[in-house]
Amino acid sequence: MRELLESLAAGERTVDEVEAAIAGYATGETGRFDAARDRRTGVPEAILGAGKTTEEVASLASVAVETTGRAICTRVTEAMVAAVERTITDAYPEASVEHDHRSKTLVVKRPTFSEPELQASVGIVTAGTSDGGPAGEAAMIAREMGASVERIDDVGVACVTRTIDQLDRMLEQDVLVVAAGREGALPTVIAGLVDVPLIGLPVSNGYGFGGDGRAALSGMCQSCTPITLVNIDNGFAAGAQSGLICRAIDRSAEK
Amino acid sequence: MRELLESLAAGERTVDEVEAAIAGYATGETGRFDAARDRRTGVPEAILGAGKTTEEVASLASVAVETTGRAICTRVTEAMVAAVERTITDAYPEASVEHDHRSKTLVVKRPTFSEPELQASVGIVTAGTSDGGPAGEAAMIAREMGASVERIDDVGVACVTRTIDQLDRMLEQDVLVVAAGREGALPTVIAGLVDVPLIGLPVSNGYGFGGDGRAALSGMCQSCTPITLVNIDNGFAAGAQSGLICRAIDRSAEK
Amino acid sequence: MRELLESLAAGERTVDEVEAAIAGYATGETGRFDAARDRRTGVPEAILGAGKTTEEVASLASVAVETTGRAICTRVTEAMVAAVERTITDAYPEASVEHDHRSKTLVVKRPTFSEPELQASVGIVTAGTSDGGPAGEAAMIAREMGASVERIDDVGVACVTRTIDQLDRMLEQDVLVVAAGREGALPTVIAGLVDVPLIGLPVSNGYGFGGDGRAALSGMCQSCTPITLVNIDNGFAAGAQSGLICRAIDRSAEK
Amino acid sequence: MRELLESLAAGERTVDEVEAAIAGYATGETGRFDAARDRRTGVPEAILGAGKTTEEVASLASVAVETTGRAICTRVTEAMVAAVERTITDAYPEASVEHDHRSKTLVVKRPTFSEPELQASVGIVTAGTSDGGPAGEAAMIAREMGASVERIDDVGVACVTRTIDQLDRMLEQDVLVVAAGREGALPTVIAGLVDVPLIGLPVSNGYGFGGDGRAALSGMCQSCTPITLVNIDNGFAAGAQSGLICRAIDRSAEK
Amino acid sequence: MRELLESLAAGERTVDEVEAAIAGYATGETGRFDAARDRRTGVPEAILGAGKTTEEVASLASVAVETTGRAICTRVTEAMVAAVERTITDAYPEASVEHDHRSKTLVVKRPTFSEPELQASVGIVTAGTSDGGPAGEAAMIAREMGASVERIDDVGVACVTRTIDQLDRMLEQDVLVVAAGREGALPTVIAGLVDVPLIGLPVSNGYGFGGDGRAALSGMCQSCTPITLVNIDNGFAAGAQSGLICRAIDRSAEK
Amino acid sequence: MRELLESLAAGERTVDEVEAAIAGYATGETGRFDAARDRRTGVPEAILGAGKTTEEVASLASVAVETTGRAICTRVTEAMVAAVERTITDAYPEASVEHDHRSKTLVVKRPTFSEPELQASVGIVTAGTSDGGPAGEAAMIAREMGASVERIDDVGVACVTRTIDQLDRMLEQDVLVVAAGREGALPTVIAGLVDVPLIGLPVSNGYGFGGDGRAALSGMCQSCTPITLVNIDNGFAAGAQSGLICRAIDRSAEK
Amino acid sequence: MRELLESLAAGERTVDEVEAAIAGYATGETGRFDAARDRRTGVPEAILGAGKTTEEVASLASVAVETTGRAICTRVTEAMVAAVERTITDAYPEASVEHDHRSKTLVVKRPTFSEPELQASVGIVTAGTSDGGPAGEAAMIAREMGASVERIDDVGVACVTRTIDQLDRMLEQDVLVVAAGREGALPTVIAGLVDVPLIGLPVSNGYGFGGDGRAALSGMCQSCTPITLVNIDNGFAAGAQSGLICRAIDRSAEK
Amino acid sequence: MRELLESLAAGERTVDEVEAAIAGYATGETGRFDAARDRRTGVPEAILGAGKTTEEVASLASVAVETTGRAICTRVTEAMVAAVERTITDAYPEASVEHDHRSKTLVVKRPTFSEPELQASVGIVTAGTSDGGPAGEAAMIAREMGASVERIDDVGVACVTRTIDQLDRMLEQDVLVVAAGREGALPTVIAGLVDVPLIGLPVSNGYGFGGDGRAALSGMCQSCTPITLVNIDNGFAAGAQSGLICRAIDRSAEK
Repeated sequence: MRELLESLAAGERTVDEVEAAIAGYATGETGRFDAARDRRTGVPEAILGAGKTTEEVASLASVAVETTGRAICTRVTEAMVAAVERTITDAYPEASVEHDHRSKTLVVKRPTFSEPELQASVGIVTAGTSDGGPAGEAAMIAREMGASVERIDDVGVACVTRTIDQLDRMLEQDVLVVAAGREGALPTVIAGLVDVPLIGLPVSNGYGFGGDGRAALSGMCQSCTPITLVNIDNGFAAGAQSGLICRAIDRSAEK
Repeated sequence: MRELLESLAAGERTVDEVEAAIAGYATGETGRFDAARDRRTGVPEAILGAGKTTEEVASLASVAVETTGRAICTRVTEAMVAAVERTITDAYPEASVEHDHRSKTLVVKRPTFSEPELQASVGIVTAGTSDGGPAGEAAMIAREMGASVERIDDVGVACVTRTIDQLDRMLEQDVLVVAAGREGALPTVIAGLVDVPLIGLPVSNGYGFGGDGRAALSGMCQSCTPITLVNIDNGFAAGAQSGLICRAIDRSAEK
Repeated sequence: MRELLESLAAGERTVDEVEAAIAGYATGETGRFDAARDRRTGVPEAILGAGKTTEEVASLASVAVETTGRAICTRVTEAMVAAVERTITDAYPEASVEHDHRSKTLVVKRPTFSEPELQASVGIVTAGTSDGGPAGEAAMIAREMGASVERIDDVGVACVTRTIDQLDRMLEQDVLVVAAGREGALPTVIAGLVDVPLIGLPVSNGYGFGGDGRAALSGMCQSCTPITLVNIDNGFAAGAQSGLICRAIDRSAEK
Repeated sequence: MRELLESLAAGERTVDEVEAAIAGYATGETGRFDAARDRRTGVPEAILGAGKTTEEVASLASVAVETTGRAICTRVTEAMVAAVERTITDAYPEASVEHDHRSKTLVVKRPTFSEPELQASVGIVTAGTSDGGPAGEAAMIAREMGASVERIDDVGVACVTRTIDQLDRMLEQDVLVVAAGREGALPTVIAGLVDVPLIGLPVSNGYGFGGDGRAALSGMCQSCTPITLVNIDNGFAAGAQSGLICRAIDRSAEK
Repeated sequence: MRELLESLAAGERTVDEVEAAIAGYATGETGRFDAARDRRTGVPEAILGAGKTTEEVASLASVAVETTGRAICTRVTEAMVAAVERTITDAYPEASVEHDHRSKTLVVKRPTFSEPELQASVGIVTAGTSDGGPAGEAAMIAREMGASVERIDDVGVACVTRTIDQLDRMLEQDVLVVAAGREGALPTVIAGLVDVPLIGLPVSNGYGFGGDGRAALSGMCQSCTPITLVNIDNGFAAGAQSGLICRAIDRSAEK
Repeated sequence: MRELLESLAAGERTVDEVEAAIAGYATGETGRFDAARDRRTGVPEAILGAGKTTEEVASLASVAVETTGRAICTRVTEAMVAAVERTITDAYPEASVEHDHRSKTLVVKRPTFSEPELQASVGIVTAGTSDGGPAGEAAMIAREMGASVERIDDVGVACVTRTIDQLDRMLEQDVLVVAAGREGALPTVIAGLVDVPLIGLPVSNGYGFGGDGRAALSGMCQSCTPITLVNIDNGFAAGAQSGLICRAIDRSAEK
Repeated sequence: MRELLESLAAGERTVDEVEAAIAGYATGETGRFDAARDRRTGVPEAILGAGKTTEEVASLASVAVETTGRAICTRVTEAMVAAVERTITDAYPEASVEHDHRSKTLVVKRPTFSEPELQASVGIVTAGTSDGGPAGEAAMIAREMGASVERIDDVGVACVTRTIDQLDRMLEQDVLVVAAGREGALPTVIAGLVDVPLIGLPVSNGYGFGGDGRAALSGMCQSCTPITLVNIDNGFAAGAQSGLICRAIDRSAEK
Repeated sequence: MRELLESLAAGERTVDEVEAAIAGYATGETGRFDAARDRRTGVPEAILGAGKTTEEVASLASVAVETTGRAICTRVTEAMVAAVERTITDAYPEASVEHDHRSKTLVVKRPTFSEPELQASVGIVTAGTSDGGPAGEAAMIAREMGASVERIDDVGVACVTRTIDQLDRMLEQDVLVVAAGREGALPTVIAGLVDVPLIGLPVSNGYGFGGDGRAALSGMCQSCTPITLVNIDNGFAAGAQSGLICRAIDRSAEK
């Protein structure tokens, strides 16, 4: 940092340049939305609906659309979706609205929003129907970061031969996100058969001992094949990190 | 019970018969060894070394050999093995002694002991080398109950195709005990491919979160294929129940 | 596997035969229902209502009836029952529908469905009234697999003499499923008195520390008599494995 | 309290009387040993060896013998026993020393110590050999409080008929302490058959899930028969409370 | 037992006598209500509303009133109370009904029911208002067992001098039940000041870490003064065991 | 920050001033010891022995003495103490060394070290002998921060009147650190009687359920009187925060 | 205490004085509200709505206003607010009512209530919007104790430079309460940069493993900078202790 | 798979080709070492020392060197290192041996082993000295997979400005592994400042509640910035997945 400050003292850099270099963000219109996060970290800030009021979500979405051209909301209720739609389309009647009931995600964009585009692809793999919610959240954020997304569904290990049947499609991806609940064995099995980066996504299904995704989480921690993982149901983190891997791959291809 | 008592009152049965029918055991020389357990439940009483002194183990083993012709000890230390050998071979110089270091089991028999023999077979499957201890304990007790035992080792899901390669051998067994530590996925995968009764045996390996067999136990509880299971490292229970299943199968074949 | 492939290369087997031998299943009309599971593993695939929408359950049930002649649904809501009935009876007006409120199970069959039939019997034992749900689920699946099922209810250890009074009936069964909540001592006590395979089924009753079946589960893991067990409330797994034991017994009797 | 103070102000009571009434103890020679606890609560203060140095235990034992004529030490190492013996027998060569290896208790008394004596009796029941340590601690403190103690050993539910066989002896006691490890079912079963107060004492044996007494503790919390209990291995609390019940019974008999 | 059977064989006892001696209960009209429990264990069977349907509770209450003259129900909903009242007063219009909203208990009696009466008394102590539910359950069952019950409320350690102010009343009781939630320190403090048997009753209040009574339960397990305890909110067990202590005291006084 | 940078750009501040203002520390000779922490946060950096090698501790202590005139080490083994003494006294033969066995702390100072001095005082209160270790660690760091420290020992609630007897001494302190293990009730009781800031320090004694300080920690979290707390055995945090409170009090007195 | 009693006996003090000195409280009109707590401990008693009925809250609030001029209620429902308002404004039509929906707190005061006033200030820092509830509770009680309160919101470590930007405001406070959910890293980071006392307040947001504030609580326990903390969501304890620190600072300034 | 089999049947592929395509591995000399894993998954199989005997480790290492030219062992004891060295250097005197005491890793290579080489780089970041073990394990496996590895040590958040000072070095890496124990906040803070893929590696230091890496693990699961993570101390998984990301990046650059 000393170097930065000396360059400022020497008049070699402006205050703005140095502030941006140190702080990593520029001050937006409202303190509460980190409009610079996408630029700084490659992952756009998302508005987590859970734990917020409908009004707060709508207000934050409004700021997001205004400052970045896009609002990404996760874990939204139907009421939040309605409120956001009302608020945004008042200001930007031509804005697009995508709402996925299954994954409880909402994306609103102004027509002028410039979509990122990456060559690298993320394979989103699920063990069964009930893994669809978190898998959908992962797919949404990876797509919003520009990655191309391929869904490979319903290949759980209750019939492991159907897992193996899909190996070719998995090997064509640049990175895999593998969602599984109950005992969560799917990422372990796949990671023993492919040579691409793989992120395990434990899902909160199952009842009784180890239910609600706890067995899946601990099983992925203990996996006899080396994998990374995220919190139970945290499709956002799995999708965002797979998106960052795609960015890194694309960057390299451009060189 | 009323019926039993009426038959006694009517002089149709003796006190001994009724006592045995109600109590399920006859009083042995020492109150501490349930010599009648094998006859009553089909599973011989075993002396659990853990939590006992060397002297206690030797003394109980002595009673066991005396009353039933055989002593089965589990979780024994080297010192216990030495003490039991000394005690038994003093009294019965011709007694046989089998000690397995890996599974910490010890079986002592008088030459006159009449070995049970069953047609049905138990397959003991392991995911890897470190599952050998509990798997060995399961094999020992199943064998002592008369079952024929087949070991199918090193077929863990880190390379699931080697699991599948052994399917034929698994399908030849009458019941399977499948031992696995870490994420414990092996019984889940196998149960999706075979049509024989299957008992999962979680093993206490692995470190960190879900280590010491906890992830394996909860994963087997959450298995997306229906299996039964036993406590972490409880090879004795897995082996004994697989032995009881073999007994039931044999009994049926004899009819 | 090599052998299979060589036989295919040598023209000794057809592609279909080898595929079936390796994959263990034939591709059905929909990828989501494992229509071949019953043939492969002896346990029919069941549709778990929990975590699915009403529409998904109805749609999967429809596929199940179409491909196998029968749909088995567990943990269903009243709305799911209604939706399934509506969907199925539209297509097959003569289909039979059995719905058990207590265990939340639903079985739908076309008249042409060929019922399996086994000689061996499963005894379903409960400690008290509140164990009825999971016990009923176990009974349903065992019965659907062809086993004859005997209910032995209300023999909990709060009055252990009533447990003992039912010993004769228990000893007549080929395998026992013993359901108990709270401290879950019943399977431990029974396993000390009988010589048939026994599966403990912990039930989620009880409040406070160790409530919701956790004490019962850990008590069955720690049982001083060797038993197997399943997850809390997992009547399906207990029933399916008891059914597999009955199949093994019958197979042996046929030889 | 106001009443006490007014009586002091009015000169109706002395400072000593009022202090004793309020504080419940008189100041001893050292602040660290509550010499008055026995008089105040009916349970003598015991010196818990665990977590103290050998020197501290010896020093506290010395004060105890000096002020009350007796020192009771629990969870002592062999080194602590030696140190206490050395220290005490220097000062009181005629002191008696009782050390029980199994329960790791030590009791030292001056010959002048006046033994309490109660008519009521405590039955100390164990499931098996490995429950002997905590059961012995309970027996020691009950005996030191003057109760007569009856040991009823080795009646665990792995063979419940031997439990029932001992019912008559149990019914002769005024209060029961029932020690059990693993699944800890014994107090539950006994409490369904007797009409005397019963304290469950969970013991830290058993391995894997619910091991070290956790399953026993939670099982006793969930017992389907109403019982009280104490912490895992806390024989001292079980014995002390059973002693207090005996005191209450004796007091009543004296009226 | 042998002795019993020999006396039967010798014609010295009748079948009925021996059956009652062994079984501990006589067969009632319905297998599900243990009408003999009061006679056998001193604690009447209570019908736990939680986990049962309204119809089941009403039906069991009906049997209880019919066979024993009294029905005791715990954890009942308002609907259960109405159903029981309707059912019972149809059959016995003159039956008395006591329903306590706070503790969710319900007691119904026929006029001919002969109330037990004991001289000994139970002190039910609470830390604060929110401990009232479980404390009330304890008071109800102690009272139904014939004990006289004294309530000593609102003496929690947030102001320990008010605890001390009530010592005299506590010392007048034969046994204390001390209910406390949150950190649950009250039984520990009182047990250091009184010489009567004391049962800690942890209550499920408090939020966050250790909430819902878990901190209170573990604190009572770790109490630095020796106490017994029961499960979180289990006023029934605390009251029943305090009632048994009162019985033992009375029995002794009668001698 | 912008303001700082503008002032630097304007030449109103030097690079050093701005760097210190932003970074909060000046670069020392080694990157591994935060020599500026004391100046920045008021709490000197301490070297935690646990998890480091003897050599690392000695080397870090050396840097600490060199850059700040003092080294504070916690959780040190005897070997670490010897290594530090050897290393330091080689370089500074006149350095002072204070080692407290009980709390496993070590403080080394060059004679030129300028001791801080505060008027405010910390009362360190313990429930019993076994709380001495963490209490000693708290006392050491508070003293090193300049606070005057008063020890008030052995006032646990097993005899709450001795707690009350020490109230006057407690009320004379500016802040209290109250150490207690087992059920950890002491801070709760004291906080109901005093009007000074109070920090609970849970101590890792006690065995069984809630042992090793877990019951004490959760009890302090649930305390019915409002207190703050620190991790189990974390005397350092309790002492450091009590020192910061003393600093704040002194600063105010100086105004 | 002896000294106090001797002075009473000697007539040097009145009964009232001695009672107050020992008991720490004067008896109010109702035993259930500790009207003297504020005077004794510096923290006014608050009525916790959770776990009480609407009627109880209203009745206790009534007593509080009557005896102390103020009622402070926490965790209140809308119904409780209405009931309290109705009850209080009947008796004191001119009473002021402050209700904060976000933090679920309610403060009612008679016009004659004399507000405490302190010079020292508490900074209440939040990581994000969802920490507002517990932070508001902390602010309310600190303010009611007379401290001046400064809110510093939305400075979470997802963008750590915005945390650093607010350092100057933080350093101006006398004590900090730092509220954070999810991973709860904010107090750790701030405590490494400031030299004022700091209390961490873990907040119950976040889902999955470590959700509901558990990760935040354990992270604050493990903080690599020394901090104190309170239970999850316990804004009351954090605010009350920060208020006590302010009192101590003011007291010192007055000297 | 069908396609593969048809091509075999058609004679278009050999049995060997099809077997390798399906099984993913060729059979080695010993069944226990998955010599083909590197080729199949990009991650070489490593021999985990923990839970194996010294002889087993040496024997497996021997097979590894023989079949792949290299043996990678993790969590090895000194005795294992000696045994492996002895065994390998007997057979291949010119073999190289690298043993890192800190991370307990051992790598043995024949001179002919052809080192993989990747352009992409992994940054291994640590919070403090005690994170060195797992960080070293991660570095070793990433290096063995061909990645270039950059260590960025001692940048923990106890002084967050030193974290920020190293941002430039972090931004130069293609992927980051961030190791941290105690509260584990470092990956969260860094992920808010960089736009490269980031894997959190929780480390088992810290004592008391949340110690041994549990707080770090749950904090990383709850991170308010999206990251992936691995099990506590699982440097192998973190390093292997970072290596796979580097492979993916290199592959892309080659296109």
